[in-house]
Amino acid sequence: MSKPKGFEKPAGVRDYLPHAVKKLRKIENDVLHCMSRWGYRQMITPTLEYYDTVGVASSTSDQKLYKLLNNRGQALVLRSEMTAPVARVVSSLLKEEPLPLRLSYHANVFRAIEEEAGREAEFFQTGVELVGDDSPEADAEVVALAIASLQAAGVKSFKIAMGHVGFLNGLFQEAVPGLPEAQEELKSHLLSRDYVSFRETLRALNLPEVQKSELNGLLRLRGGKEICGQALELSRHPLARTSIEHLCKVWEVLESYGVSEHVLIDLTMIGDFSYYTGMTFEGYAAELGFPVCSGGRYDNLLQQFGRPIPSTGFSLKTNRILDGVSGTPEKEELPILIQYDVPRRREGLQEASRLREEGHAVVTRLTAGPEDLKVVKRLDNGTLEAEGERFGEIFTFVTFISEHG
Amino acid sequence: MSKPKGFEKPAGVRDYLPHAVKKLRKIENDVLHCMSRWGYRQMITPTLEYYDTVGVASSTSDQKLYKLLNNRGQALVLRSEMTAPVARVVSSLLKEEPLPLRLSYHANVFRAIEEEAGREAEFFQTGVELVGDDSPEADAEVVALAIASLQAAGVKSFKIAMGHVGFLNGLFQEAVPGLPEAQEELKSHLLSRDYVSFRETLRALNLPEVQKSELNGLLRLRGGKEICGQALELSRHPLARTSIEHLCKVWEVLESYGVSEHVLIDLTMIGDFSYYTGMTFEGYAAELGFPVCSGGRYDNLLQQFGRPIPSTGFSLKTNRILDGVSGTPEKEELPILIQYDVPRRREGLQEASRLREEGHAVVTRLTAGPEDLKVVKRLDNGTLEAEGERFGEIFTFVTFISEHG
Repeated sequence: MSKPKGFEKPAGVRDYLPHAVKKLRKIENDVLHCMSRWGYRQMITPTLEYYDTVGVASSTSDQKLYKLLNNRGQALVLRSEMTAPVARVVSSLLKEEPLPLRLSYHANVFRAIEEEAGREAEFFQTGVELVGDDSPEADAEVVALAIASLQAAGVKSFKIAMGHVGFLNGLFQEAVPGLPEAQEELKSHLLSRDYVSFRETLRALNLPEVQKSELNGLLRLRGGKEICGQALELSRHPLARTSIEHLCKVWEVLESYGVSEHVLIDLTMIGDFSYYTGMTFEGYAAELGFPVCSGGRYDNLLQQFGRPIPSTGFSLKTNRILDGVSGTPEKEELPILIQYDVPRRREGLQEASRLREEGHAVVTRLTAGPEDLKVVKRLDNGTLEAEGERFGEIFTFVTFISEHG
Repeated sequence: MSKPKGFEKPAGVRDYLPHAVKKLRKIENDVLHCMSRWGYRQMITPTLEYYDTVGVASSTSDQKLYKLLNNRGQALVLRSEMTAPVARVVSSLLKEEPLPLRLSYHANVFRAIEEEAGREAEFFQTGVELVGDDSPEADAEVVALAIASLQAAGVKSFKIAMGHVGFLNGLFQEAVPGLPEAQEELKSHLLSRDYVSFRETLRALNLPEVQKSELNGLLRLRGGKEICGQALELSRHPLARTSIEHLCKVWEVLESYGVSEHVLIDLTMIGDFSYYTGMTFEGYAAELGFPVCSGGRYDNLLQQFGRPIPSTGFSLKTNRILDGVSGTPEKEELPILIQYDVPRRREGLQEASRLREEGHAVVTRLTAGPEDLKVVKRLDNGTLEAEGERFGEIFTFVTFISEHG
C-alpha cells in the first residue's frame, strides 16, 4: 500500500469550499431556527463515545462503526448517529427534567464502511428527539416538524413515506408463526426495497396461495388514510391492528396540522434502525434519488441507559439537502477592497473599521503606490476607484493613495 | 478494567445542555460574522485526515493524536488543529486561486493525551488563515482581527502577548553557537513559561557572566514599542535583528488600526506549534488563567503539501471563551404552550402555526380537558389561561378547550 500524497484526504470525506459552506450553514441555521420555533432546544454531545454504551445502543452494525482506543485502553467509537447520545444525556444530565423533553441537534456523524462504496464516511445530520410522549400526537408532531424543516431548508417538492414496524411484525408473526428467520428475511427485503426477493421468499414459503397473494398485496398498500382500512382487512393479529390504529390517529393529527398532502402511508416502510419500535418515516425529495430525512419511534432505547421512556424523532441528512437544493443562491454582498499606501495607512484602516461596523465586508491592502492598482479610474469627485477579481467576483475598490504617490 | 456504565461518556469530552449551546452558538456566529466582515470566507474540512499527511504536518506530538485505521488499513487521525487541513486544501482544491486567500473555520479538534490530565480531549476552535502574504501588514491584520474577534465574542478585558520565533532562534544561535540542545532547552523552558529552569540552564552554560545577565534580561523584555529598541541592543545576529524589525513594523500597523493598547510585546513568547516561523501571539482574558486565542506565522507549512506560500493566522479557543464570558445571558423569549382537546385540535395547531410564522416559539399539548390543565384562570374575555414551568422557566399558556370539556 502506497503512502498517501501530501494533499490527499481519506476516501469518503469531503472538503466544503466557501460557497458550499455558505449554503450548508444557511440550511443548518434555518432548520435549527425552525426547530426552536417548535420549542426544541439545541444540545451538543461529544464526537467520541464509549463503544460499550452508545456504540452498541446506536444499532449501527459493528462493521460500520469507526472504533479506536483511548489512552486508558477503553474502546471508543465516533458517533454514528445522534439518537443514542441524546438518549444517554436524557438518562444522565437531564434525568430530573420534567417530560416531555424537546431536544434538537446539528452534528457530524460517521460510518466506517461507506467509504468503500464511494459513499460518505462523515456527514451532517440536523434533527430532533421528542422524549416522554407515546401518543399519536407526538409522532404526528415530529412528522409535521420534519415537513416544516424540509421547507425551511428550501426543499421544494418532497413526500414523507410513513409506515409502522409493529404492523409488519404482527403481520409476519401471524403469517409465518414460529419462523423468525423467514420473518426477518421478509423484513430485510422490504428494508432494502428489494421487492423481487420479497416475492421470491414469499413464493418459497409453505403457505396457502390466497395468503401469499394477500401478503403480496402489501406492496400495493401505499396511499392516504384509506390504506389503514385496507391494512386492517389484511391482519387479525392484535399487534398489527393496534399499529394500524395508531397510524390512523397520526394521520388525523397530520390533517389537523394541514400537512397530510405531503404524507403517503407506505406499509412496506421499515426504518433503517433496529431500535425503531413504532411509526417510522422517510422523506424523499423530487430531485433526489435517496432519502433526505428519516425518523421514527424508539420506545425501548432509553431503557438501555437506565431510564425507560418512549421517544420519537427524526433527522435531516443536511449535506444531501445541500447537494439537492438547486435554485439560485442568494446574491451576496461583495467585499469592499480598501487600498492604501504607507502615509495614508491609518486613514485606510480606520475607514475599513467604519465600514465593517456598518456591516460591510471589507478587505484591506497595502500598495506601493498608484501604479500598484491594477484597474483604476478617477471619479468626478476626485477619488480613485478600481475593480478586480477574487473567487471570480468583482470587488468594489476604495483607495487611499497619497498625492505624491 | 470495568465496563463503562450505560450513561457514562469518555473522560475529557463534554455534553453541552441547551443553555450552554445557546451561548456557544452565539459566540460562534458572532465571531464568524466578524471574520466575514474582514473578508474571510468559511471552509469546512473533514474530521478524519491521513496520519501521514495532515497528522504529521499538524506538529501535534504523536502521543496527543487520536489514531485509527480505516477499512483499507490506512492510518487516520482525528484532526488536532485546523491550520494543517486548511493548508492541504489551499494546496489542492484552491491551488488555482489568486493570492492572498482569506479563509475562516469553526471546528471541533481532538487531543488524545489531554483526558489523562482532566483536560479536554475534544474542543472547539474558531479561526482564520491569511495565505500568501509575508508582510508585517498581514501579521498585523490577523492580530487586529483576533482582537476584533475576542470583542465580538464578548470578552471584555484581555491582552495579546506578541513575540517572534526568529528573534529567539537568532539570539540563542549567537549566544550558544554549535549547541543546538542547549538552544532547544532554553526555548522549551520559555514555551512552558518555566523561568526558574530557564535561569538554571543559563547558569550551567559556559558563558561570560555579562552575557548570562544579558540573556536573563530577556525575561524583562515586555512592553510597548520601546521593547524593540532594547531587543536590538541584545543581539547582533542578523536573524534576531530582522525579526525585531519585522515586529516593530507590525506594531506600527497595529497603531494605525488603533488597537495597540491591547497588545504587549513579550519576547519570551514562543508559539505552541513547531511550525511557527515568525511572529507568534497569545491572547489572555482578565478572568481566565489560560490563553483564549493563539496564532502566528507559518511560512514553511504549505511546502509540506507541495505549495510553498507564506501564511499567518490564529484561532480562538471557543469553549474556553464560553466558560469565561460571564455577564448576564440575553433574555430569551419563552415558548408559548398551546393546549387543546380533540374537538378543537385543528384550531390549536393552526394557531401554533400562525404564531411560529410570526417568529414565536410554540409547543403544543393535547389535554384530556380543563381538569388536565395544572394552573388555569379564566380571563375577562372568556379565554382560559394557564402558567407552568419547564427548564425552570415560565411558559405563556394559550388553550383551546371545548365548552363541553
